[in-house]
Amino acid sequence: VFQAYGELERQGLIEARPQSGFFVRARQQLPEPLPDAVPQSATPVTTQELTLAIISAGRRPAVALDAATPAAALLPTVQLGRSLARAARRGAIGYEHPPGRASLRRELARRSVNWGCHLTPDEFVITTGATEALGLALRAVGRAGDTIAVESPTYYGVLQTIESLGMRVLEIPTSAQDGLSLSHLERALQRQRIAACFAMPNFANPLGSAMSDERKQALVDLLRRAHVPLIEDDVAGDVCFLGPRPRAAKSFDTRGLVLYCSSASKTLAPGFRVGWMAPGRFRERVIALQWASTIATSTPAQLAIADYLSSAIYDRHLRRFRAAVSGNADRMGALIAREFPDSTAVTRPRGGLVLWVELPRRIDSMKLHALCLRHGIAIMPGTLFSPRPIYRHCIRLSCGVAWSTEIERALALVGQLARRL
Amino acid sequence: VFQAYGELERQGLIEARPQSGFFVRARQQLPEPLPDAVPQSATPVTTQELTLAIISAGRRPAVALDAATPAAALLPTVQLGRSLARAARRGAIGYEHPPGRASLRRELARRSVNWGCHLTPDEFVITTGATEALGLALRAVGRAGDTIAVESPTYYGVLQTIESLGMRVLEIPTSAQDGLSLSHLERALQRQRIAACFAMPNFANPLGSAMSDERKQALVDLLRRAHVPLIEDDVAGDVCFLGPRPRAAKSFDTRGLVLYCSSASKTLAPGFRVGWMAPGRFRERVIALQWASTIATSTPAQLAIADYLSSAIYDRHLRRFRAAVSGNADRMGALIAREFPDSTAVTRPRGGLVLWVELPRRIDSMKLHALCLRHGIAIMPGTLFSPRPIYRHCIRLSCGVAWSTEIERALALVGQLARRL
Repeated sequence: VFQAYGELERQGLIEARPQSGFFVRARQQLPEPLPDAVPQSATPVTTQELTLAIISAGRRPAVALDAATPAAALLPTVQLGRSLARAARRGAIGYEHPPGRASLRRELARRSVNWGCHLTPDEFVITTGATEALGLALRAVGRAGDTIAVESPTYYGVLQTIESLGMRVLEIPTSAQDGLSLSHLERALQRQRIAACFAMPNFANPLGSAMSDERKQALVDLLRRAHVPLIEDDVAGDVCFLGPRPRAAKSFDTRGLVLYCSSASKTLAPGFRVGWMAPGRFRERVIALQWASTIATSTPAQLAIADYLSSAIYDRHLRRFRAAVSGNADRMGALIAREFPDSTAVTRPRGGLVLWVELPRRIDSMKLHALCLRHGIAIMPGTLFSPRPIYRHCIRLSCGVAWSTEIERALALVGQLARRL
Repeated sequence: VFQAYGELERQGLIEARPQSGFFVRARQQLPEPLPDAVPQSATPVTTQELTLAIISAGRRPAVALDAATPAAALLPTVQLGRSLARAARRGAIGYEHPPGRASLRRELARRSVNWGCHLTPDEFVITTGATEALGLALRAVGRAGDTIAVESPTYYGVLQTIESLGMRVLEIPTSAQDGLSLSHLERALQRQRIAACFAMPNFANPLGSAMSDERKQALVDLLRRAHVPLIEDDVAGDVCFLGPRPRAAKSFDTRGLVLYCSSASKTLAPGFRVGWMAPGRFRERVIALQWASTIATSTPAQLAIADYLSSAIYDRHLRRFRAAVSGNADRMGALIAREFPDSTAVTRPRGGLVLWVELPRRIDSMKLHALCLRHGIAIMPGTLFSPRPIYRHCIRLSCGVAWSTEIERALALVGQLARRL
């Protein structure tokens, strides 16, 4: 019976809801977007200026649907405040030099079992958010001019980092269901020199795709055979809507070629700027680069996250948090099916904080973005998620919101504005 | 009378002590080291590995004389803890995106009058310590392969950052009295393309040199005429032993060509990782790079430093702090004169957290460093302060210590160990 349910769920005909069981999906659930064709060569990235203009324009809107950041109301502000106050009582003014606070690395090592890894505290390096981790990883394995293989579409933040380092990207077609296309990656590896592959196997930003364990292993094996490091961004791994927390690709790493990166920003406190890496054989290089980049991660923030993770409240918080975000994704999917233009497609992610919406090709997401801003609503135009202009008819929406009738009305208005374009 | 005193002080025959008056300098005060000759071309930097080995070897020694970091006992731990606890009560879990917390930038703008600047809050960007600021500044004005003119000797941390960015350095002779040689810099500017000049006009690390206001103005004018940006590191500006807080070179900047960098690390809380820049015309570029580097500076730390600076306690703390460090510098100078090998020279800085000691040329500071570590004492070998092997007979000592008989005995032991080499 469970196998049959699983098959129906895989086909999108039914869906499972936490603590409720399986439900037949509403008819208005839309097909998933299809991956785009593979480009013939690497592309320099020049979207940073546009990205910054968009980010700046969208600051402090009435309704923020743009950032892949959880709303404060969904986060354990009070308990984290207590952890921070305990850090304050301990002083916390001295450095916690690389690789970072030992107590925090111990907690991460303990939790790494949940990701299928059995990492030791010594394998971790604490960073100023996952963004510093990604930058250190990229710099540890490559240099200006090098090509990084990425999912397409991919997180605009990593494109900014790649651009700022003078690197190029090769976009690998990616399915909203299964993630990165391994066959396309394999052909790309045969065709040209690739310095590293950047991927988010668990609930990729923006597609929400989740690779199966088999495909994660195949990805790691494929890259290992080509001697190409994998930079794994697992920031959304803890935001799974159903079932156990998925494994990290790192768990299949036998040669230290996977640079695992994650952070406390998606489920706890984005502003603390606490991230971590398990950079495998690149550990010494990463630490050297970190000394030359920020020296160390802020001590009060390191102490507070270590304190919080050492208690049982994180798991309780995660259960509530996952249910809230999952519920948002469901409600938003239904609303988009009802209010958005005909032939709109939307992802049905099993985790993460975003929905990817493919609008009719006539619609320019930059225009829609500008229109929405006039109504106090921030959305993220698809243009930012590739160095090529292939996603200009797409938008990304945050489902990390605190649900309200205001959000509901705002989302409906985005659909109505899109219809007018 | 005051002019006469000033002249005698300038000649090193008498010295002023805070709230005490002028004292005739003890005979054992040694002459200052002389600047080395100017190199003919830029040098790639390859000291990072050695620097990390030294830093790692010296972690948690019994007596730390290596880092230019104030001892916790000299810092306002309790009051900063209260500021941090207030931040904790306010949540502090959301981002404080670039350019950073407005209240902190307002406090810095208010205080910039003390540096001879009249900066507005909008001119500041908050960073993850001065180290991130220096890296952003270097990346904003140059790229891999570019040449950066630096003081010689200079802070090993900036050499690490320059090396990690694939840049080269041109060392400009620097006097422990007056700082960077402007005539040498001028000739270098005529001879070759220089992407930027990095300097610490106030209490340079490691020489402790202080440029006069006239020389700061001449430096800014010289660089402006050559269209070369100045990256000014003013982290030690608040640690002046005597008289008013010196002006920043930034105060003479009329074209936005000075990228001013400083932090809370030398007088408040190194572990918070709160720094700031006033990057002039490079502001947008710096902010773009920061988004791609760490996104933002840790919110609790930003809030705590803003809260602390908004009270009057910082000025009270600074008075006590300056007196303590100044007293240490005096005591250490006397001890070095008594215990170190004949013909040792030591700087007599008017501010900052370090002494630079020139030992007889036969002494290898790396050997002395290893010997000292065996006795639980960490010192910083001169080798790290240049990409060329010209300071191997020098060491840098921290005077940011909490004075004790243990420190006194340790310093005497360093001298005795040096005598045996």
